[in-house]
Amino acid sequence: MSSLPEIKDHQQSEEKKNEVNDANHNNAVISSYWGITRPKVRREDGTEWPWNCFMPWDSYRADVSIDVTKHHTPKSLTDKVAFRSVKFLRVLSDLYFKERYGCHAMMLETIAAVPGMVGGMLLHLKSLRKFQHSGGWIKALLEEAENERMHLMTMVELVKPSWHERLLIFTAQGVFFNAFFVFYLLSPKAAHRFVGYLEEEAVISYTQHLDAIESGKVENVPAPAIAIDYWRLPKDATLKDVVTVIRADEAHHRDVNHFASDIHHQGKELKEAPAPIGYH
Amino acid sequence: MSSLPEIKDHQQSEEKKNEVNDANHNNAVISSYWGITRPKVRREDGTEWPWNCFMPWDSYRADVSIDVTKHHTPKSLTDKVAFRSVKFLRVLSDLYFKERYGCHAMMLETIAAVPGMVGGMLLHLKSLRKFQHSGGWIKALLEEAENERMHLMTMVELVKPSWHERLLIFTAQGVFFNAFFVFYLLSPKAAHRFVGYLEEEAVISYTQHLDAIESGKVENVPAPAIAIDYWRLPKDATLKDVVTVIRADEAHHRDVNHFASDIHHQGKELKEAPAPIGYH
Repeated sequence: MSSLPEIKDHQQSEEKKNEVNDANHNNAVISSYWGITRPKVRREDGTEWPWNCFMPWDSYRADVSIDVTKHHTPKSLTDKVAFRSVKFLRVLSDLYFKERYGCHAMMLETIAAVPGMVGGMLLHLKSLRKFQHSGGWIKALLEEAENERMHLMTMVELVKPSWHERLLIFTAQGVFFNAFFVFYLLSPKAAHRFVGYLEEEAVISYTQHLDAIESGKVENVPAPAIAIDYWRLPKDATLKDVVTVIRADEAHHRDVNHFASDIHHQGKELKEAPAPIGYH
Repeated sequence: MSSLPEIKDHQQSEEKKNEVNDANHNNAVISSYWGITRPKVRREDGTEWPWNCFMPWDSYRADVSIDVTKHHTPKSLTDKVAFRSVKFLRVLSDLYFKERYGCHAMMLETIAAVPGMVGGMLLHLKSLRKFQHSGGWIKALLEEAENERMHLMTMVELVKPSWHERLLIFTAQGVFFNAFFVFYLLSPKAAHRFVGYLEEEAVISYTQHLDAIESGKVENVPAPAIAIDYWRLPKDATLKDVVTVIRADEAHHRDVNHFASDIHHQGKELKEAPAPIGYH
């Protein structure tokens, strides 16, 4: 589960500068002007690292021994409102997507990557304003956002969005980003609970997705190359493996967000309980 | 310059759960309910890691062989506007702070940590909306923001802010965050250039700070413990060492932001040129 870094050589040798020059003349000119050289990054087996959007040290093996049925019983009023809101959104999205699992997953990941970024940013600004440590929560929430974005980068290899889906996402993001921003400012307690419930639904959706793969309704295609590198999957991994690790990620986000809401419910601030960093 | 991870054991053993329970009863109850255990993190010498706001694998040795005089000559109109704006802000801040170097540094870090977060967040949202890879720029800009926040966490150990300074920061952040958000949406090219010039000024300020330490005007006190762990400084490091590594960080941010603006000046998008990740 821990992520180990690979070869990460930041030494700026002339040899490397020349290699970069050959590879991409224009960028190299600017970048060598500013003294910025791109380190050569390799996999553990020595082959060249093909991704720029994530590095070998961001990759990990997901802990898939999760409890898929875990549920936080709504107790307080904020819990109940959060739970009902998520259930209402669930009905809407089921009506829209029906059994188009891949499409459903892809669209939801564009939304799921928003809360972590908003929460992380607001905690960052608070930490600056108040000269306070964050207890690691800024990083934990930003990690969540990056992880959700990686789900999207994987899903988009499997499902090509149509123009009307793109339009829907554009609108949904504009609304959701602003709404969640205000929501988190008003009540981080309710906001984290809301995300916890959203992730419970994500776990349910991916379980249905897995059932559909197992029953043959959805073809168990080979895993995209990006997924194999990100989750350190075997070379012959399939869609089923990918959905299994993504579901595990969502279960971990569920636990982290319910945990965060519980801290607030105890009248404490997040920074008082160390954040679960690198919790996959 | 590369950061190596320490022991990072995510195995959830009963033994560890009990340790956490003993250490902090309340948090442990919630966190073990959600299956979240805090891994024991240690330094390379085996002593316990005392920080939650950053982990050993975030620490690094700064490359202090920087060119402190490097300057991007304003060419385009956006360059000139960005340069003039920064010079105007410089005059204001010099009038306010005069020779109170520590206070100046602390206040500026609360502002300097904003652009990376705003840029990173906007690129994250764009990546989601457009189903596009980021070329690593989201991470690079978020890393910049986290690094600037660590500067603040260091400075605040050395200078205690007064209530009117706190009030000023509160106001300045509200204005600057919103202004930079709109600025980056309208022209990332100008926004990165602006940050590049801001960092040029930061390098000048820290050079003056160093001169004041060398001439004895500012006392060369021992480095705060957090700085020693973050920059992997020797145990007997002093303020001078801290200011030297912070200045190097600012010089690197200067180069990265001018580089980013140059990419935009070439009519390209950032994702077309791989981001300098872990560039310290």
